[in-house]
This record gives sequence, C-alpha cells and structure tokens, in this order.
Amino acid sequence: MHYPEPIAKLVESYMKLPGIGQKTAVRLAFYTLDMKEEDVNAFAKALISVKRDLHFCSICGNITEEDPCEICQDTTRDRSIILVVEEPKDVMAMEKMREYHGLYHVLHGVLSPMEGTGPEDINIASLIQRLHDDEVKEVIIATNATTEGEATAMYLSRLIKPAGIIVTRLAHGLSVGSDIEYADEVTLLKAVEGRREL
Amino acid sequence: MHYPEPIAKLVESYMKLPGIGQKTAVRLAFYTLDMKEEDVNAFAKALISVKRDLHFCSICGNITEEDPCEICQDTTRDRSIILVVEEPKDVMAMEKMREYHGLYHVLHGVLSPMEGTGPEDINIASLIQRLHDDEVKEVIIATNATTEGEATAMYLSRLIKPAGIIVTRLAHGLSVGSDIEYADEVTLLKAVEGRREL
Repeated sequence: MHYPEPIAKLVESYMKLPGIGQKTAVRLAFYTLDMKEEDVNAFAKALISVKRDLHFCSICGNITEEDPCEICQDTTRDRSIILVVEEPKDVMAMEKMREYHGLYHVLHGVLSPMEGTGPEDINIASLIQRLHDDEVKEVIIATNATTEGEATAMYLSRLIKPAGIIVTRLAHGLSVGSDIEYADEVTLLKAVEGRREL
Repeated sequence: MHYPEPIAKLVESYMKLPGIGQKTAVRLAFYTLDMKEEDVNAFAKALISVKRDLHFCSICGNITEEDPCEICQDTTRDRSIILVVEEPKDVMAMEKMREYHGLYHVLHGVLSPMEGTGPEDINIASLIQRLHDDEVKEVIIATNATTEGEATAMYLSRLIKPAGIIVTRLAHGLSVGSDIEYADEVTLLKAVEGRREL
C-alpha cells in the first residue's frame, strides 16, 4: 500500500514548488490533512485566483487585477521617469520605499546568451514604444547587480541614449547597516568607485 | 501599494504551512504565478480532495477513502495481531516494509499531561473495544521512542495485559547502517539492554 490517492496527488503538487523535496512534501500533505477545512479551501481558492485574476499590464508589464495597472492609471505620478526592473516583485519592493513617484517598466527577465534569452524574448520592444512619448525624460535601470542584469542595463543604455533620454542606474555599494569586514570585494569596489564628497 | 489582493491571500495561505515564513511564502506565491495553469489547478484540486475524500476508518482510525479501510477489509490479513501507532503516516511507513500482515490501530496522538492530552483525547476506547473480540492474541505497541510515546506504551500495556493478551513493543537499538561512535547514549543503552545471543 502506498499513500491514499488524494495524499499522493497533493504530495506531487507540493513537490512542484521550489525547494520542496519528497520528505517535506509528505510532511506538508499530512499537515494539510489536519488543517481547518476553511483554511484549506481558502488556500485552494487563492491558488486559482492568482492564475485567474492577475494579468500583466499592457503598458508596463507589471502584474495587476485591472488593465492598465493602478500605477499606469495614476495621473498624480511623474510620467517623465520610467524605472526599469526585471520582475513584478521588484516593483513591489520599490513601492515599499514610498519615495519613488514615477512609472515602471517590467522586463520579465534579463538578457542571457547562456540561456538563449535575447532582446526579443523580454519586454524591451514595448519599452522603446513608450519612449516615443515626448514626456519621458529619464530611464532608471534597476536590473539586478548580476552579470546578466549589468549586461541588460548596458544594452538598454546604448539603445535609449541616442534618443536624447537620460539613462541612469541605481547606485551600488554597501548595504545600510552592513559591516565592511563582511562585504564581498565586488561590492566594496562599487562602493569605492561610487564614493561621494561629504 | 502592497501586493495585489490575490497574491497577498496566497502568501497568507502559504504562511499557514509549517516552516514557511513570510519571505518564503512570497517567493512561493510569485513562483505559483509563473507555474502552468494546469499544475496550479491540480494543486488546488488536490488540496480540496484531501479534506473532502479522506476520512478516518471507523475501526482502526487510519485515513482512508472508503470505510472501513482497505486493511481492515482485507480478509487475508492476520486478525490476531494489532499494531498500535500514533499517526496514519506511521501505518504507511510500516506498510512500506511489506513484512507485517496484521491489523493496525491509529491513536491520533499520545498521552501528554504537559499538553493536557489524556486517555479520552486519543483513540484508546475503540482499541479496547476491538480487544473484546476473541481473535486478538497480541498487541504490538509502536508509539515513538519519545517520553510521551513510552508513557503511552506503558499505559496501554497495563490496560491490556489483564485481559490475557500479549503486549509487545518494537525493539529499540542502533539503526541499521549507523555508527556506534555517533549514536546517542539513550539509543546505546537500549541497544545494550536489548542485546541478543548470536
């Protein structure tokens, strides 16, 4: 005898999540069995809702319930700046800061020759389309500080600058609250290169 | 702006699982967003099915889709032995061994004065009921080797022995393939106490 069919199926589903192997999946499945019925139903509903009710904004590519998204629709935001990020969660991280009031553009990936991701595979064409609008004065590139993120930033900068738009990149350096002692060399180098007069 | 409502709800659900904090829940929610729609639907269905289609066997307390469970219904099994475990997953672990052909009884817990779990809170009454059947000759107590598991084993043994039924306990000792060097003292003590002539 193996696990009863419903448990086996749930184990299989849990194992599709990142970082969850068979043992953890079995533990989670049995835990689910002991959960309150309403909690399990809410969980199932939330799973379906995430796929059914969320779409990508046709302007900026961010995830949203309505199209265009709240931010693109918001007339109080500064339409002269577009901040370019890799993923929707980066938009949410930026919004948590509460100090950026421009617009966003989500690439949904980065250029990666290793993985065969070229400019046509990510959301670049629609960004260029948006720049034809005279309002845009600055593009802030906020891709991650990885090799692919840097290469994408460089690619976009070369593509956009000729149009007379200012292209900037987020500052890299030491995290606030971090110890120099524990910083890696690349971060330290960026911190020294980007030093500012007091 | 916080996360869109559907994501926030899914994060909340993931956080109800053991060992999953907010950061992991957010990561899983965004991962879910990128999963294939059919996989997410299967996941939701499996969650609901686990609560809806599984019940406890009215005889042994094991989880089952039909009542009585497959094992209790199986006439080829030895009805003179009942193996008592704490949880349904212990039954599945035993069945994996493929060498035990008797019946089971699932307690759904252990006696724990610390947590206020007394004999009436776990599935003991129905075990005693089953013992009135003349067929039962031996009860193997396979509760875990924890303080509560040992106490429960002792309690059951005192309750059952007067009825003239043999009560046994699984052997404790070194795991197969383990090093004596790394075994804890209690396990070593059990291994010495339980030594057998070669």
